[in-house]
Amino acid sequence: MKLKRLYSTFKYDLDLIEKELENAVCSNSTLLQNASLQLLKAGGKRIRPVFVLLSAQFGEYKIDTIKNVALALELIHMASLVHDDVIDEADTRRGRPTINYTWDDRMAMYTGDFIFARSLEYMTNISNPIAHKKLAKAIVEVCIGEMVQIQDKFRFDQTIRDYLRRIKRKTALLIAVSCELGAIAGKTDERIYRRLYKFGYYIGMSFQITDDILDFTATEKELGKPAGEDLRQGNITLPALYAMQIPELKAEIIKVNEDTNKEEMQKIIHLIKHSGAIEKSHLLSRRYLDKALHILQELPANRAKRPLQEIANYIGKRRH
Amino acid sequence: MKLKRLYSTFKYDLDLIEKELENAVCSNSTLLQNASLQLLKAGGKRIRPVFVLLSAQFGEYKIDTIKNVALALELIHMASLVHDDVIDEADTRRGRPTINYTWDDRMAMYTGDFIFARSLEYMTNISNPIAHKKLAKAIVEVCIGEMVQIQDKFRFDQTIRDYLRRIKRKTALLIAVSCELGAIAGKTDERIYRRLYKFGYYIGMSFQITDDILDFTATEKELGKPAGEDLRQGNITLPALYAMQIPELKAEIIKVNEDTNKEEMQKIIHLIKHSGAIEKSHLLSRRYLDKALHILQELPANRAKRPLQEIANYIGKRRH
Repeated sequence: MKLKRLYSTFKYDLDLIEKELENAVCSNSTLLQNASLQLLKAGGKRIRPVFVLLSAQFGEYKIDTIKNVALALELIHMASLVHDDVIDEADTRRGRPTINYTWDDRMAMYTGDFIFARSLEYMTNISNPIAHKKLAKAIVEVCIGEMVQIQDKFRFDQTIRDYLRRIKRKTALLIAVSCELGAIAGKTDERIYRRLYKFGYYIGMSFQITDDILDFTATEKELGKPAGEDLRQGNITLPALYAMQIPELKAEIIKVNEDTNKEEMQKIIHLIKHSGAIEKSHLLSRRYLDKALHILQELPANRAKRPLQEIANYIGKRRH
Repeated sequence: MKLKRLYSTFKYDLDLIEKELENAVCSNSTLLQNASLQLLKAGGKRIRPVFVLLSAQFGEYKIDTIKNVALALELIHMASLVHDDVIDEADTRRGRPTINYTWDDRMAMYTGDFIFARSLEYMTNISNPIAHKKLAKAIVEVCIGEMVQIQDKFRFDQTIRDYLRRIKRKTALLIAVSCELGAIAGKTDERIYRRLYKFGYYIGMSFQITDDILDFTATEKELGKPAGEDLRQGNITLPALYAMQIPELKAEIIKVNEDTNKEEMQKIIHLIKHSGAIEKSHLLSRRYLDKALHILQELPANRAKRPLQEIANYIGKRRH
């Protein structure tokens, strides 16, 4: 698999970041440390650090500086996952018990706060005020997005535009900022970091749409949760929105609520899968991906371009 | 009352900050905005902004710069209140319904996150990296402190040292940093901002001890909650710790739990009030206050010294 090969060329620096992530969540509160470590051990693709490192290649790649941005972005992401698991009442994440499940919601709230605070500490090693401004703005947007996501639950009359704005805040922004801040920390000029921001934004949009497609098309085993779970919890994603453009389908979909059972959900999933909505969603995801690849062409020759392209292609093809 | 007079000399700048606080919590999520505004309207002493403004007087007092620090510190404080209300399952704060009460815990969690993110946005207008480093470190400590406070609940074997470390993180640190960052934003030299940090730290310790005394000595009307509520909820404060130095009293106090009724609590409060624990607590609070006033003497002549002294004296005498 291509992504693995990409990771192997960065193995040393990524291992360093993985080690530092462990340090980051250390504290003299055993309880807090155990909670944070549990989350850390659950792993993840560390996609944000990868984007930070690759983007920094377009400037001066000094790992001792760059690592602070990579750590900050991954920690912010982790903190948001902890709080999201509270909202979603999730018992597991990546097959491991969540903090709210092992302890309780309140413990999870403070653990998220703590991890977030730690991320700020790493960021203070970056002197360029532009980086701080851009990050703070993005975090505010992410928070607003989380709130809007609650408000939008089971709002079947929402538009595709609502959906796109939501996934921008939920996913694309932090990936865009990972690329941008990696470049800024590498002291690239503005034209380059602006393009990398856009690259990250398009990649993030494509990534989230694919994620939302997989919620309908992947198996329960691949997902680690039943298919269609997003919809059953009121999170109305692109395939559902496309399917609802057909009135007969809309009539069925708007009946879904948290009490909808597995059998009924499977019927709904079957309808959505055979409505053309999945293909249309793939098309939009592909369009964002093409935009990302196009931006990449505009960037100067650099050894990071090939791996960035590989990530883009991986996202286009990923199955879970 | 002296404090009111002090505030009146800063009225213009404090009004500006109050207005900006309203802007700060604006967002295109009505729900989020309403929640944040509800908290804002509940008011508060705005003690952190006052310390920021006064400390900045020791350097170049430029309100357009300084206000960012004042806003950031007050917003961080507000965010922590929102999350604390979730932990404490509080229904009201300053006589108004809490966010977790009006909406729910999850709404309160995200509102706290949002307000915190906004505070960062204001801080990015401060260019001195030292300010950011000091603030980030303090926030991490505050988060650890919140977690430790949960762990220490009903831990009747804790020491006075444990208590002092806890109130440092809970209260004194952010007040110390308010003074320090106000001075740093005013570009004072290091000797001055270090002293102001210490001043704030001592004031904060004294303030919190007084708060913890009042929980036993003030009336239900003054407190807005029954007396002894801290202890009943397992938050073991200085008067209780001093009282427990008497074995017969300890035997009574360790029986307290969340089911202890009002009558039983009043008996316990009576015992504590007549054990000498209140006087001993006042003595320690006074010692911190004297240290604060002593530091003030060491600071250069400045029109901010008198109001800082007045705040210190107010804290020494306040009754609720």
